[in-house]
Amino acid sequence: MFDIGELMYERAKALFPINRSLTGDGVRETLNYIKRVLPELTMHQVPSGTQAFDWTVPKEWSIEQAYIICPDGEKLCDFEKCNLHLMGYSTPIDTVMPLAELQKHLYSIPSLPKAIPYVTSYYKENWGFCLTHEQRESLKEGDYHIVIKSALFDGVLNYGEVIIPGRTEKEILLSTYVCHPSMANNELSGPIVSTALAEAIKSMDNREYTYRILFLPETIGSIVYINKHLERLKKHLKAGFIVTCVGDERDYSYLSSRQEDTLADKVAMHTLKHHTDNYTTYSFLDRGSDERQFCSPGVDLPVCSIMRSKYGTFPEYHTSLDNLSLITPSGLKGAYDVLLTAIKVIEFNRVYKVKTPCEPQLGKRGLYPNTSDMQQDYSDVRRMTNFLAYADGTKDLIDIAEKIGESALSLIPIIEKLLASNLIERLD
Amino acid sequence: MFDIGELMYERAKALFPINRSLTGDGVRETLNYIKRVLPELTMHQVPSGTQAFDWTVPKEWSIEQAYIICPDGEKLCDFEKCNLHLMGYSTPIDTVMPLAELQKHLYSIPSLPKAIPYVTSYYKENWGFCLTHEQRESLKEGDYHIVIKSALFDGVLNYGEVIIPGRTEKEILLSTYVCHPSMANNELSGPIVSTALAEAIKSMDNREYTYRILFLPETIGSIVYINKHLERLKKHLKAGFIVTCVGDERDYSYLSSRQEDTLADKVAMHTLKHHTDNYTTYSFLDRGSDERQFCSPGVDLPVCSIMRSKYGTFPEYHTSLDNLSLITPSGLKGAYDVLLTAIKVIEFNRVYKVKTPCEPQLGKRGLYPNTSDMQQDYSDVRRMTNFLAYADGTKDLIDIAEKIGESALSLIPIIEKLLASNLIERLD
Amino acid sequence: MFDIGELMYERAKALFPINRSLTGDGVRETLNYIKRVLPELTMHQVPSGTQAFDWTVPKEWSIEQAYIICPDGEKLCDFEKCNLHLMGYSTPIDTVMPLAELQKHLYSIPSLPKAIPYVTSYYKENWGFCLTHEQRESLKEGDYHIVIKSALFDGVLNYGEVIIPGRTEKEILLSTYVCHPSMANNELSGPIVSTALAEAIKSMDNREYTYRILFLPETIGSIVYINKHLERLKKHLKAGFIVTCVGDERDYSYLSSRQEDTLADKVAMHTLKHHTDNYTTYSFLDRGSDERQFCSPGVDLPVCSIMRSKYGTFPEYHTSLDNLSLITPSGLKGAYDVLLTAIKVIEFNRVYKVKTPCEPQLGKRGLYPNTSDMQQDYSDVRRMTNFLAYADGTKDLIDIAEKIGESALSLIPIIEKLLASNLIERLD
Repeated sequence: MFDIGELMYERAKALFPINRSLTGDGVRETLNYIKRVLPELTMHQVPSGTQAFDWTVPKEWSIEQAYIICPDGEKLCDFEKCNLHLMGYSTPIDTVMPLAELQKHLYSIPSLPKAIPYVTSYYKENWGFCLTHEQRESLKEGDYHIVIKSALFDGVLNYGEVIIPGRTEKEILLSTYVCHPSMANNELSGPIVSTALAEAIKSMDNREYTYRILFLPETIGSIVYINKHLERLKKHLKAGFIVTCVGDERDYSYLSSRQEDTLADKVAMHTLKHHTDNYTTYSFLDRGSDERQFCSPGVDLPVCSIMRSKYGTFPEYHTSLDNLSLITPSGLKGAYDVLLTAIKVIEFNRVYKVKTPCEPQLGKRGLYPNTSDMQQDYSDVRRMTNFLAYADGTKDLIDIAEKIGESALSLIPIIEKLLASNLIERLD
Repeated sequence: MFDIGELMYERAKALFPINRSLTGDGVRETLNYIKRVLPELTMHQVPSGTQAFDWTVPKEWSIEQAYIICPDGEKLCDFEKCNLHLMGYSTPIDTVMPLAELQKHLYSIPSLPKAIPYVTSYYKENWGFCLTHEQRESLKEGDYHIVIKSALFDGVLNYGEVIIPGRTEKEILLSTYVCHPSMANNELSGPIVSTALAEAIKSMDNREYTYRILFLPETIGSIVYINKHLERLKKHLKAGFIVTCVGDERDYSYLSSRQEDTLADKVAMHTLKHHTDNYTTYSFLDRGSDERQFCSPGVDLPVCSIMRSKYGTFPEYHTSLDNLSLITPSGLKGAYDVLLTAIKVIEFNRVYKVKTPCEPQLGKRGLYPNTSDMQQDYSDVRRMTNFLAYADGTKDLIDIAEKIGESALSLIPIIEKLLASNLIERLD
Repeated sequence: MFDIGELMYERAKALFPINRSLTGDGVRETLNYIKRVLPELTMHQVPSGTQAFDWTVPKEWSIEQAYIICPDGEKLCDFEKCNLHLMGYSTPIDTVMPLAELQKHLYSIPSLPKAIPYVTSYYKENWGFCLTHEQRESLKEGDYHIVIKSALFDGVLNYGEVIIPGRTEKEILLSTYVCHPSMANNELSGPIVSTALAEAIKSMDNREYTYRILFLPETIGSIVYINKHLERLKKHLKAGFIVTCVGDERDYSYLSSRQEDTLADKVAMHTLKHHTDNYTTYSFLDRGSDERQFCSPGVDLPVCSIMRSKYGTFPEYHTSLDNLSLITPSGLKGAYDVLLTAIKVIEFNRVYKVKTPCEPQLGKRGLYPNTSDMQQDYSDVRRMTNFLAYADGTKDLIDIAEKIGESALSLIPIIEKLLASNLIERLD
């Protein structure tokens, strides 16, 4: 039997080894892989040196090989074995130096002695190696041969964009990032779940909204994108979600937009409340991904995050321990289901109004029992009459659902029945 | 000594045996009884078949006799002995059938084996008998002779209306129902307390408001009334109360309007908080009487309920156990007192404003002690200065009372003193 | 080493013996003392009989001597020994009366047998003596010779005003009172701390606000002042504080304005929360000083109180026990510090806005680490990015500080850095 969780996990395995960074072949390779699944994906490129608000697109980085030869001849921190060994955007070098000097360029985590940390230096030329603290502790005095065959040059920054048109120009945004090397929850889960959501959205009938799904390098990618499209985003974007850290099984979580009460927040909270057992709420003060740009003053877009274990909260975060054993088919599927439910809820989240004063006579339409008898179960009828009682043309579906203590999803069949009976109308 | 509770109880006893239903002689007999107490009552009639929004006034129902002859010749479910035995709006029948077939038309309550349930079928032609579960369990196999001498015919639906004019066209509504057969808390307490309140309102001097008191068959009656008078209600109605379940001694309760913050709700909550020991709050989701129509979208009137034990919450509800032993003179009087206090509070609930900046000099008017001495009791003075501190022309009496932690009723003598001293004015 | 607390305490000692009342030499002597410290102080006078809203300025009261000669020749309640012995505004008398009659004019506190109470009769001609309950209990039958050499005559009511101009006409008010005789926390702490604050404000550079500091007799003084200046106050006053009971060490407290959410309240609550260990909040229902006038309907000014132990809450209040041992240099300095911090916060409490969409690139300005490495301490950087995230042109400094969980004071250096980097601007 086809299982979307398994499929997503297989895709994560395929993308895991690629060395992604802000720019370069790794990003392109990743986007090309996604384009094979989603032919609608268009790849965009922005030249190094391009200004975007307060930022400048950095040089492109390529890396051929990188390693350290120890005094005893052993090869250490070999980039080929683990791309986390090399600090992102390391400049080229080929030199010999004593351990004491090398130490200034080494990164490890004393509290996680078996983890290789993930470190970058995008905006200041520098080089460095990352290794487990155990390895580092075992280093002997002597001369080390440092080899980094990399290049920083005027190239391009790439990002991918998928547009799935709907009935209207009103847009829903999914934004995810493709700039971290071999990490799983805090990298691949994002593009993988976003890709599967795009496939599901394509198969939905009568989409009200146009969906825009971005695969960007984090921070500079979203800044470049916003710089180019701010006017359109402000005009059409109704809700957006940063899709990141959506692969493990430990937690569900929600990180609010800066404005806190946007449609995206309302949908996220309602969906998590009704369709997960439990979830953790983070304020915008806990932010860390591209909501930092989408919600920044002057941009002010309705963008929040629905996640599993949030970046920064799990011990494997930004280390080699965030690998394919941290994410699971079921973890990915859980996040996918919640995000897809959120999207369904948004599609139905319209303002409804009953068409006549006083309660309609449901009995003559077979929607109410004709014999009044307190021994019957009135709960289905009650759900419908409650919906009707609050469908006053001022409340959207989620407002009504929250008011009457139901999930929006469970009200969709009722709405369809009442629309068919011509008892309610959509106002927007 | 005259006791309004005893008087109300006597009236309930007189009205108890009448077989009320949505339509028919029982309603008219009940309204005629009330008209003898309140000659202002006008009786209205609406023909069967009249459209009212989504509804049609049903046929009129008359019933001569109804009973079952058991195989052993015993008479069962004799309507003459208890009008609850017959399902409301039962169609005529005279036939013999075996027990198995009869069972499909019997109603009883296994969990209340000594109670006869109250069942109706207004909008689908059907017949049925209600009996205690004990009786039902004792029925033997054999042929049963079913006799219902009833008629369904084009007639009228009746309701009564009492208007007590005030200084202005602004209206306060009391609405109660007269369509249940022999039940006490959930039927007679409503019209009985409403009648006594009408008498009390008539004797009040300088009424600001016009009072409109409706005695209707539930649901269809209020729908017909609203259909006829919606424009006027929307224009003039300031607050209304559904008067139902106001006869027992177990509880006080409040059921909010749909809008939740109308003047009616504000007055009800303030009055119950300050003039009962305790009360239960129900949301509009717990609704069940004519607030369903008065508060429906498109009608949106400020109508809530002040009750004793709410319908649906007491075990005797909609059974033969809701009889004259469930209600008491003191239970009726408690509800009457709270509702009458609510009405007094509404009458005084105006916006007041002090006439000069800074505190007035109360001492020169004998309203403040002239010697400053911390050993004195300043609490009366404090109540007055607190009232003055908040009488800023933006708050009504209840707002101020809630702000300063007093009951609105206790501030009325202070208001009268301050108006007499020309220190405050009424703004509305 | 210079200690502002010690200096304030010395000034309190100098002013303690003076017999202040609503009017008269005591007020003038006190104001002259303050004028020697603050030469800007202008002394104003208003003739007896002047109307101010609902009030009339009372006669001026002078007192030469007052005492009682006991039957045994002993001198009792000698005004020279303690000015609290004489009821404020006592009329002249020279007569002999038996103890029983004298008792009607004596005031003592049974529950505080060693305290002389503070009693006045400003608006009704009367006389009286205050003494300890122990003294009163020891009085023997016999004839008492009562001597009060006082005068009530058409004179003036005095108050002092210090104006310290700022860059704009927008005003901050400090109001304190100078009408109580020898009491310390509930009298001298107010003018003493206000005087020291005036000195500190004078030394502040680039004041945004104009400061107005009033030294008034309580109630009638503020009413007279408001009557004269209401239009200007309404136009320019942005926040004000009643400075009273600011000398002991037991408590910090805040008493809200009537409107509850003015700038003064916002600043007071924020400052007390961040710069004291703990403080007590009082509602406007607990009011008792000149906020009664400044916040009254029709005046409606943004005035609240920051205090130490509030009047009426400490046992020594309005008795001879509220003396120089109740207040301390450190108690005075604590209140001074909090009020001065509140003033600094107000000066910086502007609306800020980042100048470009998306996060600025702090790294290139040396405000953000260039190497991303989770092992670093990001807390300083986080404070700055949090400030930037909320500096959206709709929130003032305190709003942002509360949102991000910092004290406004701690954000001032960040604001200065961001203004210098041209990353933010002031909107108002």
